[in-house]
Order: sequence, then structure tokens, then C-alpha cells
Amino acid sequence: MSESQPGGTERGTERIEAFSDGVFAIAITLLVLEIKVPHLQAGSDLLSSLLRLWPDYFSYILSFVMIGIYWANHHYIFKLFQKTNHALNLLNLLFLLFIAFLPLPTEVLGDYLLDRTNQTTAVTLYALGLLFPAVTWLLMWLYASRGHRLLERNLDNGYVRQLTLQYFGSVALYSAAVVASLIDFRWGLGICVRLTLLYLLPPRGPSYHRERG
Amino acid sequence: MSESQPGGTERGTERIEAFSDGVFAIAITLLVLEIKVPHLQAGSDLLSSLLRLWPDYFSYILSFVMIGIYWANHHYIFKLFQKTNHALNLLNLLFLLFIAFLPLPTEVLGDYLLDRTNQTTAVTLYALGLLFPAVTWLLMWLYASRGHRLLERNLDNGYVRQLTLQYFGSVALYSAAVVASLIDFRWGLGICVRLTLLYLLPPRGPSYHRERG
Amino acid sequence: MSESQPGGTERGTERIEAFSDGVFAIAITLLVLEIKVPHLQAGSDLLSSLLRLWPDYFSYILSFVMIGIYWANHHYIFKLFQKTNHALNLLNLLFLLFIAFLPLPTEVLGDYLLDRTNQTTAVTLYALGLLFPAVTWLLMWLYASRGHRLLERNLDNGYVRQLTLQYFGSVALYSAAVVASLIDFRWGLGICVRLTLLYLLPPRGPSYHRERG
Amino acid sequence: MSESQPGGTERGTERIEAFSDGVFAIAITLLVLEIKVPHLQAGSDLLSSLLRLWPDYFSYILSFVMIGIYWANHHYIFKLFQKTNHALNLLNLLFLLFIAFLPLPTEVLGDYLLDRTNQTTAVTLYALGLLFPAVTWLLMWLYASRGHRLLERNLDNGYVRQLTLQYFGSVALYSAAVVASLIDFRWGLGICVRLTLLYLLPPRGPSYHRERG
Repeated sequence: MSESQPGGTERGTERIEAFSDGVFAIAITLLVLEIKVPHLQAGSDLLSSLLRLWPDYFSYILSFVMIGIYWANHHYIFKLFQKTNHALNLLNLLFLLFIAFLPLPTEVLGDYLLDRTNQTTAVTLYALGLLFPAVTWLLMWLYASRGHRLLERNLDNGYVRQLTLQYFGSVALYSAAVVASLIDFRWGLGICVRLTLLYLLPPRGPSYHRERG
Repeated sequence: MSESQPGGTERGTERIEAFSDGVFAIAITLLVLEIKVPHLQAGSDLLSSLLRLWPDYFSYILSFVMIGIYWANHHYIFKLFQKTNHALNLLNLLFLLFIAFLPLPTEVLGDYLLDRTNQTTAVTLYALGLLFPAVTWLLMWLYASRGHRLLERNLDNGYVRQLTLQYFGSVALYSAAVVASLIDFRWGLGICVRLTLLYLLPPRGPSYHRERG
Repeated sequence: MSESQPGGTERGTERIEAFSDGVFAIAITLLVLEIKVPHLQAGSDLLSSLLRLWPDYFSYILSFVMIGIYWANHHYIFKLFQKTNHALNLLNLLFLLFIAFLPLPTEVLGDYLLDRTNQTTAVTLYALGLLFPAVTWLLMWLYASRGHRLLERNLDNGYVRQLTLQYFGSVALYSAAVVASLIDFRWGLGICVRLTLLYLLPPRGPSYHRERG
Repeated sequence: MSESQPGGTERGTERIEAFSDGVFAIAITLLVLEIKVPHLQAGSDLLSSLLRLWPDYFSYILSFVMIGIYWANHHYIFKLFQKTNHALNLLNLLFLLFIAFLPLPTEVLGDYLLDRTNQTTAVTLYALGLLFPAVTWLLMWLYASRGHRLLERNLDNGYVRQLTLQYFGSVALYSAAVVASLIDFRWGLGICVRLTLLYLLPPRGPSYHRERG
């Protein structure tokens, strides 16, 4: 005689958070490997070679801050989830696939930002590299918040709607950055940098329905 | 006067899970390092060079999803284990050895999928790279489930048999992929991709004997 | 009807510590990748090539110990914090940005310490690479300790002042190392090595006000 | 009025274990990066190039198993420690420095095992790469077990002596491997492989004094 466990694929969120934290921490620390130390011939000047790498430092800082912000936000919204299930795990895996991929567009941006022929391609790819995680993030949120599926029971509806709007806004702005960089790479990059600065602002704390005594 | 601790090498599974999670998270995040940014001469087109890397993106996604699925399944079966012992630790280490090795066949697949002379070798190696973890996974499960050695006491026998069949099936299908890729690399790759998609389906929750009151 | 959670961005310090630990562990383990195994032509002597890499081993050890000490100190001061908030998270992220960046100046030091033209640049960059984390560390501490903002309630004022002085001292000494290496790289490197040895001394345990019975 | 916390640098062992686990997991997963996928010219045979890399696979497996065993043993002896202090933290950091360094001698062994001119150097370096962690491991144990300084109170003296002997034995055998490889690299490598196989045997469980009722 046997019985199925109720909700066989629903679990607490601790493990998925720990695994995601691992991927965030590794992706953020691998970024430095994308900066190659110049191999100079005897007598060449190291200082000027290192200074010429400034697009690498710039893209390193930008991506480091972006992954750091996603890490913080990941904790933030998983705190709002009561549980996880198979579909959310897969969406989260897809999101992490794009986070772990970020070192590549970061290196491309560093290598080709100053190359006239290819700077448009480099910036567009970078904006795409930021658009993909924003889209999968939105999908995660829509799936989890739809009809309060996986959310904490007492979470305020207005607060949920506000986050939904905010995540739709991110996707819209990164899409704009992709389009803008096709016209002028400076515009696309400008949107990316400004969005990053915007995300540095403190998030508003969550609102809950008052529990009935 | 001294006495031996009973079951000196048997332990809870928390630590082995934490260590395995670390290896999963690192292996999955290292995959991106296998994609090399092209070093172009002045005036060459970056976009076409990046597009030509599509086998790298393809193998990145395939291996990312595979490691992600193994991570989820690892948690899944270790939840069914009551404890671990020295032999299971060694089998798990062997399994992780093949997981940590996956970035190599992934890079080979990305580099040689379009090379007529070597695409058969590349796909066969990749199928082997997926067969090895499947075999060691089966060995882990057979060792742990044999006579319910390390399993939760109340786990349903039919459910255990079903998992055993499923893991034997994986080994059979990856073996078929290895053989098929020797005949036509498209067939081998097709089996690998389809198996990955199959694994994305939600697992059935475990069944337990009803506890006697 | 909804109400805001009090202190919406203030949290316990467990997660920020876990994430920081991840970055420390990865950065410290990536250091070895900066040492390149020599690719010799047939008949060349491996031993002499490996011995000639001694500046790489030296910079590996120096940076390994520095990151290890920062890891220990990070735990140490986060034990003194009662909670964290958005601003401290950002300062910590900035600090980690420089920790994760350390493999680069480490490789530069290893590659160019013996290159007469560039050894001054290499050592100055390395001293800067140690100055940056020291400065952000000081900023973290000043922010958290200002008016006991985020500190444990009973922490002794004299003890807090002593740490403040010590962290100001670090910044002063690493600034001195930067200036000194511009004059003579041996002086700059000497200060860096001696500071590292100094940090190996055990820290004084924290002092608390006596709790009133 | 203030008072010092008793034993200001003595702590529980959870954090040092978590940090060490991180370094073990990363070092073991980085090993695969030391194997370079061959870049072939059109028409060259991939299979024979991959087979010719067998010394790389061999050294990968050997080092993977070694780090895995050290990971298991690290948990094992830290279970016997009641607490940690500043000196033990530093000795552990030194031990981890050599664990994190292992990918280098592993790559050297893989690259030069078949190079007649340099195989002696490669194997001797590898044996040294295993001797260093064994020596620092012994130092950690001697420091912690001396007069039962940091050990669990009830640990049996005979059991402690047995471990001490065993760790001295490891150092002696790896020293023998270093000397042997200077004479004939096959002997040195043979000792390293056999020691690794020996370590795969299950450890004896710890013995404790019987607690007085």
C-alpha cells in the first residue's frame, strides 16, 4: 500500500537559492579572466598597454555591478516566494544560463568598443546580453505571481502589480537599448549605464495585508 | 577504555550535497570559458565571426541544461537517501569527475561540429561525455537502493523499481547515441538533444508506504 | 489594507556573508590560472623554465595570503554587525569588485617583476590593487560604525575607535606603498610584503560593555 | 566599563569548513581547464590528437581523486576538532594554498609526461605538489592534537596516536616519491598512484572514551 506525497515537485526555496548564489558568485568572479594581460616585447611600455585596456575595465565594472544587482534582487524576490516547483526551477535555470553567459558579451565589449568597424556589433550584443536575463526574470515573476501561484499568502496586490510593471519596464528599456545601439552605439551604451545606475537605488520594502488577529 | 562509534563512515547527506552543489555550480559556470572571443584583424566583421560560433552556443546550452538537470536530480535522489557511507561517497566522487569533465567534450563539440573530417569524432565524444555520468549515476543508485541499503525506510518498492528502470533506460539510450553517432553524427546528436528535452519533464513525486499508526 | 514592513532593506548578514565567501573562495582559487605552464620546444629544459617563473609563485603566495586574510577579517567585522542594509550591501559589492580584480595585478606582477622597463609599473599597479580593497573596506567600516549605525549594541566605543584607526592606518600604508614604488619598486614591494606579514598576527578579540543584570 | 570576550580568536569550525569546501570544489572543477582542446588544421585527425592527450586525462583523474580524498578527510578531522583558533586558521590557509596550486603540477604532468627530456622534472614536481599538502596537513594535525589542544574532549588517545602515525607515514611516502622520481620517474609516479589507491580505502571510525554515567 503506497500513497503519493502531496505536491511532489514543490519544495522550499533554500536549495535553488544556494545553487543560484553559487552561479552568481562564480560568474561575477570569472569576469576578471576576460581581461588579458598584455604580452609585451622587451622594451615596450606596460603602462600605456594597461591604460589602453580601459574598455575592459569599464565592461568589467558594468557587468560586475549588474550581476551583483541581480544577486540582490534574486534574494529579494525569492523571499516573496512561499515555495518553488518544477516550472520555476526550469525558468530559473534559463535565467542562470544567461547570467553565466554574461562574461562573453563583456569580453566582446571590452575588446571591440574602440574598433570602429565593430563597435556597433559589440554594444548591441552587450545590450542583448542584458536583455536576455531581464526577459527570463520577467517570465519567472509572471509565472510565480500569476494568481499568487507561488507567492507568500499575505503579499499586497498593489505591491505585486508594481513589481510586474517594474520588470516589464526593464525589458522595454533593454529592448530600447538594443535598438538604440543599432542606430548609434553611444545611445545604446548610455541606456545600459543609466539603467545600471538606476538599479543601485534601494528597493522599496514589500507590503503585506494586515494579518487578522 | 574506548569504544568505536557505530557506523563510523556513515553520515548524513548534507555535506556531500553541499560539495556536489559546488561542483555543479562551478562546472555549469565554467562552460562559457570554452567559447573563445574571436581575435579579428582590423576591418574584419565581428558579427559574422560571432554568428559562425553558433555550434559553441548550441553546445553551451545543451551542456548547461544537462548539468542543471543533473543538479536537480541529484537533490531529488539524495532526498531519498537516509544516510551516506564511504562507498557512496566514492561513487559520487566518480560521478562528479565526469560532470566536471563535461566542459571538454562541450568545447570539442563546439569547435568541430562543422568540420567534416572530425564531426563524427566530436559528436561521439560528446555522447560518451553524457554516457559516463549516466553510468556512474546508475551505479550510485544501484548501490544505494540494493536491499534498501541507504534508502528512506518507507519508500515504496514499486517506486524504487521504476527509478531503477529509468536509470537503466538512460544508460541504454546514451549507449545508443554513441553507436548512432559512429554511423551518422546527426543521429547521435539527435538522440542527445531529445533525451535532454525529455529530462525537462517534471519528475514524478516519490511514493511511501503508509506509516502504521 | 496594507502596511510596509519596518526596515524593508535591513536584513540579517548571513546571505551577504555567504555570497562574499563564495567570491573570496573563487578569487583565491583562480589565482593559479594566472601562472602559465611554459610551452617548450623539444629538447628545452623544463626545470629552468619553471624556476624562472619564481615571480609568479611569489605573487601567487602574496595574493593568496592577502585574500585569505581579508576573508578572515570579513567574518570578523560582520560578526560585529547587527544587521546590513542597502548601502552596506553596495559598499560590500564594491569591495568584492576589487577582491575579484586582484588576479589581474597579481599576474602583471608575476609577468613583469623582472622586466627592467616595466617593473615599476607592475609593482605600483599591485600596490594600487591592494590599496583599493583597503579603501573600500574603510568606507564599509566608517558607514557601519558611524553613530553605531549597524553595530552590535554593546560594542565598546574604545574598541570601535581602535579598529577605525587600524583601518585608516592600512589605507595610509598602502598609499605609502604606491608612492614608494614610484620611487623604487623594491620599497613599494617591501611595504606590501611587510603589511601582509603584519596581518598574519592574531586580531584582538572584541570588547563589549558589561550587560546590566 | 568593558570586558574582553574569553578566547577572542577561538571559534566554531563551521565557517572555516565552508570556506575550505569552496576552495576544494573550485580547485577540483578547475582541473579540466588545464586540458587544452587541440586546434587542428583542416583535414587533420581529431581522434588521434585527443587520444594523444591521455597523459592529461591520467593526471586529471589522479588529481581529481586526490583533492576529493582531501575534501573527505578534511571533514573527517574537522569533526574531531572542538573549535578552531587563529593559528589553525593560518595553517589551514597554507594547506589550501597548496590544494589550490595543484592544477599547475597537474598540467605540467599532463604536458611533459611523454617528453623524454623533461619527464623526470614533471613527475618530481607532481610528487612535490602532493608532498606540500601532506606536510601542511600533518602540521595542522600536530598543532591541533598536541596536548589535545583543539580536539573533542573524549577522543581516545590511542586513536589520536594512530592518526598521527598515519599522517607522518604520508609525508614519508611522498618524500620517498620525490626522491624516487629523481632516480626513475616511473618509480615516483608508481608511489603516487599506489598512495592514491590506498587512500580510497575506508577510514576507521573514531574511538571515544566511554562517558561516565
